[in-house]
This record gives sequence, C-alpha cells and structure tokens, in this order.
Amino acid sequence: MAMGIPVKPLLQTLSGQTNSKPPVWVMRQAGRYLPEYRQLRTEAPSFIDFCLNPKMASEATLQPLRRFDLDAAIIFADILLIPFAMERGVHFVSGEGPKMQPLERGQPLSQLEKAWSLAKLEAVGEALGIVRHALPKNVTLIGFAGAPWTVATYMIEGGGSKDKWASRLWAWQEPEEFDQLMDILTEASIDYLCMQAKAGAEVLKLFESWAEGLPEPFFERFIIRPAKNIVAGLRERGVNLPIIGFPRGCGNLAVRYASETGITALALDQAQDGRWFSQNLPKDMVIQGNLDPAVLRVGGAALQSEVARVKQSFAGRAHIFNLGHGITPDTPIENMEKLVKLVKATT
Amino acid sequence: MAMGIPVKPLLQTLSGQTNSKPPVWVMRQAGRYLPEYRQLRTEAPSFIDFCLNPKMASEATLQPLRRFDLDAAIIFADILLIPFAMERGVHFVSGEGPKMQPLERGQPLSQLEKAWSLAKLEAVGEALGIVRHALPKNVTLIGFAGAPWTVATYMIEGGGSKDKWASRLWAWQEPEEFDQLMDILTEASIDYLCMQAKAGAEVLKLFESWAEGLPEPFFERFIIRPAKNIVAGLRERGVNLPIIGFPRGCGNLAVRYASETGITALALDQAQDGRWFSQNLPKDMVIQGNLDPAVLRVGGAALQSEVARVKQSFAGRAHIFNLGHGITPDTPIENMEKLVKLVKATT
Repeated sequence: MAMGIPVKPLLQTLSGQTNSKPPVWVMRQAGRYLPEYRQLRTEAPSFIDFCLNPKMASEATLQPLRRFDLDAAIIFADILLIPFAMERGVHFVSGEGPKMQPLERGQPLSQLEKAWSLAKLEAVGEALGIVRHALPKNVTLIGFAGAPWTVATYMIEGGGSKDKWASRLWAWQEPEEFDQLMDILTEASIDYLCMQAKAGAEVLKLFESWAEGLPEPFFERFIIRPAKNIVAGLRERGVNLPIIGFPRGCGNLAVRYASETGITALALDQAQDGRWFSQNLPKDMVIQGNLDPAVLRVGGAALQSEVARVKQSFAGRAHIFNLGHGITPDTPIENMEKLVKLVKATT
Repeated sequence: MAMGIPVKPLLQTLSGQTNSKPPVWVMRQAGRYLPEYRQLRTEAPSFIDFCLNPKMASEATLQPLRRFDLDAAIIFADILLIPFAMERGVHFVSGEGPKMQPLERGQPLSQLEKAWSLAKLEAVGEALGIVRHALPKNVTLIGFAGAPWTVATYMIEGGGSKDKWASRLWAWQEPEEFDQLMDILTEASIDYLCMQAKAGAEVLKLFESWAEGLPEPFFERFIIRPAKNIVAGLRERGVNLPIIGFPRGCGNLAVRYASETGITALALDQAQDGRWFSQNLPKDMVIQGNLDPAVLRVGGAALQSEVARVKQSFAGRAHIFNLGHGITPDTPIENMEKLVKLVKATT
C-alpha cells in the first residue's frame, strides 16, 4: 500500500481481504443507549428535525466514535426520509414509532415522483461532509437508504405493522402497479445514495429490514429486482463504492439475494447460521454480522462466548463484525466497550 | 394394500410415498373465516371454554371437512392449553389475543410441574374421540402441541410480543434455569401428545411458531433439543405416529431442525424457498408447505399460479400441501374451494 494512504480496515475487508481481527461497527451505534445522544436529541423539536439538522445529525454520528474503537461511522438518518421527501407526512410518535399518511390504492403513484425532491434531504449530505472531515483516518463512513419493499410497507400501512398485510395483498393484487411503486422508490434511492456518495460516504448500505415472510416469486420481484436495479443504477452513475445489502429475516433466500443483486457484502441477521453461509457463499462475497443484540444487552460470559463463536463461524472469510439487528436502548455502555475489545482481541 | 384398509393420502405421504396430487390441509382451517364457526363460537362464554367443550371443539374441527375435500382434520385447540393447565391464568382478550400471568424470574419453576395436570385437558381427548368416529375414512386426524420455546415466550411475556425480548434475555442470562423450563414443558408436551395419540390422533404436529430471530446456539439448545426430546419421549412411550415439526421463521436453521430432531416431516413457512429444500433435504424427509396465506386471501390468477409453483417446487418428493402460516379470517370461502380444487387437479 502506498505511503500516506490511510488504512481503513472496513474498506480493506470490503475489498475481499480476510482478517483475523474483523472490522467492527454496530447497527444503531449512534442512538438511545448513549446518554449524550439522549441529551442531544432534546435540542430538536422532532425526530425529522433532528435528522435534517446537519450539526445535530453529524454530532450524533460521531458520538459513538468518541467512546469506542469502531471501524465505521454510519450517518445518523432514517430509512423513512425518502417518503418524508415525497410529502407523505412522515412523523414519529413517541413510544409508537413512525406514522404517515397511508398510500391509497387507485391514486396515481406519479404524485410520489412529482413530490420527490432530493433538495429536501440536502442536510444529510451536509452532515456527511461534516462527519467525513471529523472522522479518525482509520474509520470508514457509511451512507444508507431503506430498500424499496421495506419503505413501501411503511408507506402503505401508514407506519410499522406486524405482518405488512395490506402491502402483501396489494403486491399480489396489483403486481404491475407495485412494480411501478418499486421503480419510483428505486429511482429515489439511487438519487439519494448518489448524493450521499458525492457528499463523502465511502460505503453504502441498503436496509431491507422487512424481508421476512415473503414467498420466492415476491422476494425475487420486490426485493431482489429493486436491489439489483439500485446497484446497477449507482454503477451507471459512476458510484463504485462497496454496497452492503441487509435482507433481514429472509431465511435461505439470502443466498439468492447475495448472488443476484450485485452487492459487495451480505449482512446476516442473527437467525442465519453464519457457519453455513461461510461454507456455501462464494469466497468473494463479504459477510457482515451477526451477533444477537440480546446477548450484547446481557453481556458477561455469554457475550464473550458468542463473540468468539461469531468470529469463528466466519473464520477465513472477509468478515465485518456487527449485530444481527440494532443495539437496543437498554444496552449498558460497558457491554459495547467489552464487545469492541473482544472483537479486536487476537484469538 | 390389503382390502378393507382405508386409504389415507396424508398417511401415505407421511410414510414417504410421493404423489403428483399432494394431500392438502390448511393451518387454521377450522376458524373465523367460516360463518358456521363464528356462529358456534358464540355458544361458549370464553375461548378456553370453547376449546375445552368436546362437543364444540369437535364440531369446529369437523366444519371445514363438510365444505372442502381436505385430507386432514386438525383438532380444534390452542397452543396455550399447556400453560392453562399449569394455572397461568390464560385467557383471551378480544382483539388483543392471549394473556396470562407473566412468569417471574426467581420463582421456583417446580410450581409449574406441581400445577400441571393432564386431567384438565381431558376434553381435548374426548373431542379427538368424537372427531375420529365422525371423520370420512380417507381423512387423517392431527393432534398438536405448541413447542416449548414458543409456549415459554407467551408464559414469560404474559402474551404475544413483538420480539420476545424478556424471553431472550432470560435464556441468555439463566440458561440452566431456562433448560429446566424447557424440560418441564417438554414433559408436559409428551404427556399431552401421548394422550392425544391414545384418544385417536393419527399424526402429531409440533408448532414452533416463534422460531424466528434466534442465533444458532439458542436454536440448538431451546428449539432443537426440546423437539428432539419430545420425539424421543413419545417413541419411548410407544407412540409411533408420524410427527410434523414446524419451526416458523427460522431461516436456514430449518435444515438442522429437520436432520436433528427425529421428526417425520418438516413444515416450511412461505419465506423458505421450497425448491432449495427439495434439492437439499434427504429424500426421506417429508415436506409440508408453503403457500403464502396472502395469496389465498387474494385468490384469482395469482392463487392459481402460486399453487402450481408450490406443487412444482416439491415435485418428486413426499409433499403435503399447506400454507406457510394460518388462513386469515378475511379469506373468502370460495378461495379455499378453489385452492383445494387446484391442488387436486392433475397437472
């Protein structure tokens, strides 16, 4: 490696290099388990205001880096900023989560394209710029978007829902219209991720948080196809950053997702058997994951043995250590400290 | 086959015979989508009273058989009858689902063993006897129990919950105590399933409805081990009926579940790629599944093509046609009629 070029372990791993000490970051590492985050959050009237305030969002992004020896920062934002920028009335109700105006069947979807404007999300780019300048040289900056199916479920249900029933019925009943919805969200995602790349993101991540419970033809049409189109659209626009795909809860269809979308790295949730994926995915597919957030919450000997097991399950592969889902607000800070030390310990 | 012995397609399939027209039944086929069920349900003051009234439970079990050419009846009961019989105060709140007194950490679990008495569930055996006598000769009678992990989550959370957080923390923090809880529920399940076998059940099913989101060591300890112990316990007590295991949402760990528990058939939810399991499971493992309940709700051309796809994905194997989850109350009856006709049509 040429002198003076900073060594970023996460980028090295994403280029396919194996490492006995995997780079580590944690989903929702900037968030409510940190007292300084809870304090900062009180300074904005709403969660959307907070996300779209470059000073606050960049500060929230940097907070965990000051405490823990993490290899990545992920920009503080929300997967629902795209529907926010499509004027869906996205807002967050304390204790209930996100809410918005549910999409009505039969209304022209072109209203979403018309409402969409990247300008409304410029603050995310500004925050990325601030963070990129402030980051330690070994830390990689990740940008992200919610994947179209996941974002669509919130837009259709009007918020979170147990089994995305209205979305699933709509998709079965009006697959062409649903393709159109996926295409609109795909284009917006490409715009948004391109902007993040230009603003300083070094890696992009696609969160398909609700990939669970979908049969194979649905998964192929509404999860794999949009992800593939986003990756291709980014490449066409000259964005050649590594892309991490996270199809959470999708069972063994993750194998298809990894091989058909063009992603660089597959993020696994904790219910996926890492050892099996290590043995069965092509060697050039980087894997991220997949510690149970519950064992991070619990800490102690259980955390120690689980960190060792997860590391071991990906031994010999290019592996990024992470959880299988976000860290929970009740997790003690000392457990995060312990986690990072355990991952970085030579075994 | 000897003359006079009734031909039961479900039992033939469970013995490993392949069939171009798979036997078919549907999870929750006795239930709220049927007007005659909704009428009958008004005759009992509570859902538990309904389940434990042999006349009503047997009648509910038989109702779908009068409408549809199904190959199995599944006894009308609930996976929470075991905690009911352990005096956990199980009751059902309309629109909210099951509730009970949450188990408290530190209380001796032996109270559950002491409270447990199979006599409290005798009505289930009576209902099975009534149904067995009334069934058409080609229809197979299925008994069932909730699997220990799933039942434990309700007992710990005090009802349904989004991510079973308290159960997961307890299991990580006190694994030996959790093993004890699993063992108590395992013993009760063996008692209960033995009773069902003696009362006339011809097949037993273990519902692990909440197998999702668990990491491999947890899955092995609290899902595979109890299932294996239940199967072994039944065999020791001379119950040699086929056993269907349904670890819902467990991703590719279903492969381990199939090979390590001793079950006869693996039931797949709709997120599992049937074609992959067909190609990768040993030939003597019967597979049940896995149509999306949402496409049954939708009907029409989508239902037709999905039934064909599901059948095709298990072609050449011993396959029982079913959904990947229960039929929903909003499903039109004509869609059930259509489903059964489509499955039984020669393709």
